[in-house]
Amino acid sequence: MSLTAALEQISAELGADRIATEIAGYQSDKTVAFTASPMAVIIPHSETETARCMRILSSFGIPMTARGGGTGVTGGAVPLDAAVISLERLNRVIEIDTANMTITVEAGVRTAAVRDAAASHGLFYPPDPASLEDCTIGGNAAVGAGGPHAVKYGTTKDYILGMNFVTPDGTLMRWGGKFVKNSAGYALGPLIIGSEGTLAVITSLTLRLLPLPGESIDILASFASLEGAVDCVGEILRGAIAPAALELIDGSAVALTARHAAGGVCFPDAGAHLLIRLDGADTDTVERSFAMLVRLLDARATGYLRAAGAEDSARLWKSRRAIRSSIEAESPEFFAEDPAVPRSEIPAFIRAVDAGIRKLGAQAVFFGHAGDGNLHINILKYAMPDDEWQLKKESIRSCIYREAVRRGGTITGEHGVGYLRKSHLAALYAPEELALMRRIKQAFDPDNLLNPGKVL
Amino acid sequence: MSLTAALEQISAELGADRIATEIAGYQSDKTVAFTASPMAVIIPHSETETARCMRILSSFGIPMTARGGGTGVTGGAVPLDAAVISLERLNRVIEIDTANMTITVEAGVRTAAVRDAAASHGLFYPPDPASLEDCTIGGNAAVGAGGPHAVKYGTTKDYILGMNFVTPDGTLMRWGGKFVKNSAGYALGPLIIGSEGTLAVITSLTLRLLPLPGESIDILASFASLEGAVDCVGEILRGAIAPAALELIDGSAVALTARHAAGGVCFPDAGAHLLIRLDGADTDTVERSFAMLVRLLDARATGYLRAAGAEDSARLWKSRRAIRSSIEAESPEFFAEDPAVPRSEIPAFIRAVDAGIRKLGAQAVFFGHAGDGNLHINILKYAMPDDEWQLKKESIRSCIYREAVRRGGTITGEHGVGYLRKSHLAALYAPEELALMRRIKQAFDPDNLLNPGKVL
Repeated sequence: MSLTAALEQISAELGADRIATEIAGYQSDKTVAFTASPMAVIIPHSETETARCMRILSSFGIPMTARGGGTGVTGGAVPLDAAVISLERLNRVIEIDTANMTITVEAGVRTAAVRDAAASHGLFYPPDPASLEDCTIGGNAAVGAGGPHAVKYGTTKDYILGMNFVTPDGTLMRWGGKFVKNSAGYALGPLIIGSEGTLAVITSLTLRLLPLPGESIDILASFASLEGAVDCVGEILRGAIAPAALELIDGSAVALTARHAAGGVCFPDAGAHLLIRLDGADTDTVERSFAMLVRLLDARATGYLRAAGAEDSARLWKSRRAIRSSIEAESPEFFAEDPAVPRSEIPAFIRAVDAGIRKLGAQAVFFGHAGDGNLHINILKYAMPDDEWQLKKESIRSCIYREAVRRGGTITGEHGVGYLRKSHLAALYAPEELALMRRIKQAFDPDNLLNPGKVL
Repeated sequence: MSLTAALEQISAELGADRIATEIAGYQSDKTVAFTASPMAVIIPHSETETARCMRILSSFGIPMTARGGGTGVTGGAVPLDAAVISLERLNRVIEIDTANMTITVEAGVRTAAVRDAAASHGLFYPPDPASLEDCTIGGNAAVGAGGPHAVKYGTTKDYILGMNFVTPDGTLMRWGGKFVKNSAGYALGPLIIGSEGTLAVITSLTLRLLPLPGESIDILASFASLEGAVDCVGEILRGAIAPAALELIDGSAVALTARHAAGGVCFPDAGAHLLIRLDGADTDTVERSFAMLVRLLDARATGYLRAAGAEDSARLWKSRRAIRSSIEAESPEFFAEDPAVPRSEIPAFIRAVDAGIRKLGAQAVFFGHAGDGNLHINILKYAMPDDEWQLKKESIRSCIYREAVRRGGTITGEHGVGYLRKSHLAALYAPEELALMRRIKQAFDPDNLLNPGKVL
C-alpha cells in the first residue's frame, strides 16, 4: 500500500523515530465530540524535514493535516482520512533581534514561550489567545488567533512580518522578513494566515515585537444593562484611553460565574460587566488613563473596582476565565461560537440570538471582546436528550450566523471554520466568492492533499 | 472590431458619456518617461457600473487597467495594450460611522478627502503617502501605500476592514466589514491589497478610524553621522516614545536641500537629520514624550530644534518635502527607488549602495522612513548622455535590489512593482514562489485581462 511505502521512505531518509508509534494523542483537538484516527503521525524535526516529509507523502498521494498545539475548537487539526504532520519538534526560538525588535521562531513554539522569550529581553509579544500556554504560534497564524489584547494591539496577523511555509509538494517557500513594509508581489503570507492549513504548512515565523509596557491597571466595572456597557465601550474607544483589554461579560455569564466560581464574583447582580486593562510605560501614563476612564465610569457604570495590585488583578482575570469552568459545572455538554459584529450592534445581536436560542429550547451564555465586536457564545445542553441536542446544534449555529451576517458581521472572529462551520460558510460568502476561494485552494494544492475536509 | 463592439455596448447600456473622448490625461502616471496610449478610456459612475463595464470588456476579450489618481511611480496605471477604467467618478464618501469608528468610501476618493472627512468627525485616518492630495484610496490599497505615519500607525493595509472588488469577469464581490477580526475563509482582501490591479479592481473600502490626536510636537535633530542617527532611531523605538513620524534625511539629502531650498535648511552640515513628530491626546502626553526624547537626543544628537508652533512645524516638514524639488533643481532627470531593509542594516546598506552607484558613475540622494527601514533613494542623471543613462538605470536598480535582498530586505516598500520592477522580482522570490503567484493570478484572471504586463 502506498502509505506503507511512504512511511518506509520517511523512515529510511529521516529516521524511524519520525513516525510516531502511538497515535492516541493525535485523534482530536479541543473540539467537542469530534475525533478521527490519523492514517499515520509524522514528526519532522526541522523545517527542511517537514518539507521532505510532505514531498514524500504527496508523491504517494497521501493527504496530510498539520498539527500545532491541538487546542482548536472547530476540528481544524483533526485528520479526516489524512496523515498528521505534528510540528511539536519544530520548537526552537531561532533568534531574538533586539536591534530590529523581532523574534523568529519555529511554528511549534508555544505562544507563551514566544511571549516569555520576548519579555526576557524587555520586549512584548501582545497576542494572547486564551489557550496561550498550550497553543502554538504556527497554529495561531493558521487560524488568525486573537485574544483580549486585540482591542489595542491587534491579532496574530498584525505581528507576522515574515513566514516560511511548505506547499503540499514539499517546496519550502519564504515570504516577508524583518521589515514592516513590502509592496513586492502578492501577499502570500497574509493569504496563508487564517487558511487553517489548507493552503500550506507554516514552519517558521518572524514576529514584530513592541516595548514591554511597564505598568498596568485592571478595573472591573458593573452596569445596569448590556446596552449601558456597550455604550461605554464606544465612549472609551472614541476617547484617548486605548485600553489594552476591554472584555464584556453579559449578565448571563455573570450570574453563572456567581453561582459556580469559588469565592463568587463582584457585582453578581449586574446586567453586564466590563473588565478593563490599562497599560503604559510608567505609572503616570496609566494613572492618567485611569483618571479619564473614571470620568466615563462615574457617568455610566453602577460601580467599579480597581485591582490593588498584581494579586488582585490576577483575581479579576481569574473570574473572567472562570466563566468557562462555570459553564462546564452547569452543563458538562455545551458548544461555543465566536461571531463578530460591528461593535454598536452587540446589544441587539445578543438579544436576537438569545431569543432565537431560547425559542429552540436551549440556553446560552454571552461574553467576549467588546472592543472588537467579537463575542463568545456558549450554548448549554443541560438535560436535553442527545438526539435532540445534535439536531438543534445546527439550527442554533444557523441562527447565530444568520443574525451575525444580517448585522454586517462574520461567522467566526477567532476560532476559524475548521470542519464544524464548513457548511455555514455560504451564509457569509456568495457562491462566486466561494468559487474564487476554491480556485485559490487549487493554485496551492491541486490534488487536495492539505487538510482535506476543512474550510471549503 | 471587438473593441468597437464593446464600446458600443457600454454606450448603449450605460450612456455614451461613460466613454472618454479625450485620452490625453490617461497615457501616463508619475513614472518618469513611461507612457502608452489606452485602447479606450471608460469612466463608470458607480460600483455596479464598474462591474458591468468589466463584464462587457471581458466578454470581448479586451484587457483593462484600472486607474486611480495616476500618482504611481512604477508604471502601474499605464495601460499596455489595454483599455483604462478610470475610477474618477467613484468619488463618494458612502458613510462615516462614528459609533463603530469606520468610514466607507468609493475607491476614487482622494486620500486627503478621507483624512478630512474623518477629521470633521473628530476621527483620524493615519496613512499619509506623500501624494495624499492627489492619490486615491483605491490606488493606495492597490499598492499597499505607506507614508511617514507608518512607524506608529501602520500602512493602508492596517486600516482596511472591508473591501468591494470586481473580478475580471465583472463579478462584484465583498470581503470583510465593520469588524476587526475575521477567521472565516481565505483572506481575499489582504491578497488583493498590493496586487496593483492585476487580480481585481477595488471599488470601495471600509476603513478603520482612530481618535484624532489633539496635540503634536515636531523636532528636527542633527547627527554627526548616519550611523549615529540610525542608532538613535533604535533607541527611540525601544523606548516608550512611539513617535508618529521618524524620518531620516541622510547627509546627501541635507546638503542638496541646503543648496537649493529657499531659505536654506537648519543644521546644513549634519551627517544626517531625523525629523520626528510626537503626537498624543493632550499637551501633557506629548510633553512627556518630548522629555523622554530629549534625554536620548542630549546623548546622541549634535543639536535639535523644536518647532515653536504650527507655522514652525510646517516649515520643518516643508524642508523635508523640499528634498524632491531640490533633486529636480539639481538634475531634472532622476529616478527613485524605495527598498526596505531591517532597520539596523540602514547604514551599511546606504554605504554599500552609495559605493555601488558611484562605481557606476552616478550619484544618489538618500532619505526615508527610518523606523520602518524603508528608504527613498533618488539617482540623479546630471549630464550623463541619454543612452548611457538608460543602460545604467537597470544596473543601478540591480545593485540596489541585490544589496537590499542580501541584507534581508525587499525591493519595494511602498511604490510597488508595476512595470519597471517586474523583471527584478526574481531578485526577491524563488522561481517556485513566482510560479505560485502566477497560479494565484490565474485563479483570479484566467485570460490575463487585468492590468497586463504588470507585477508578474
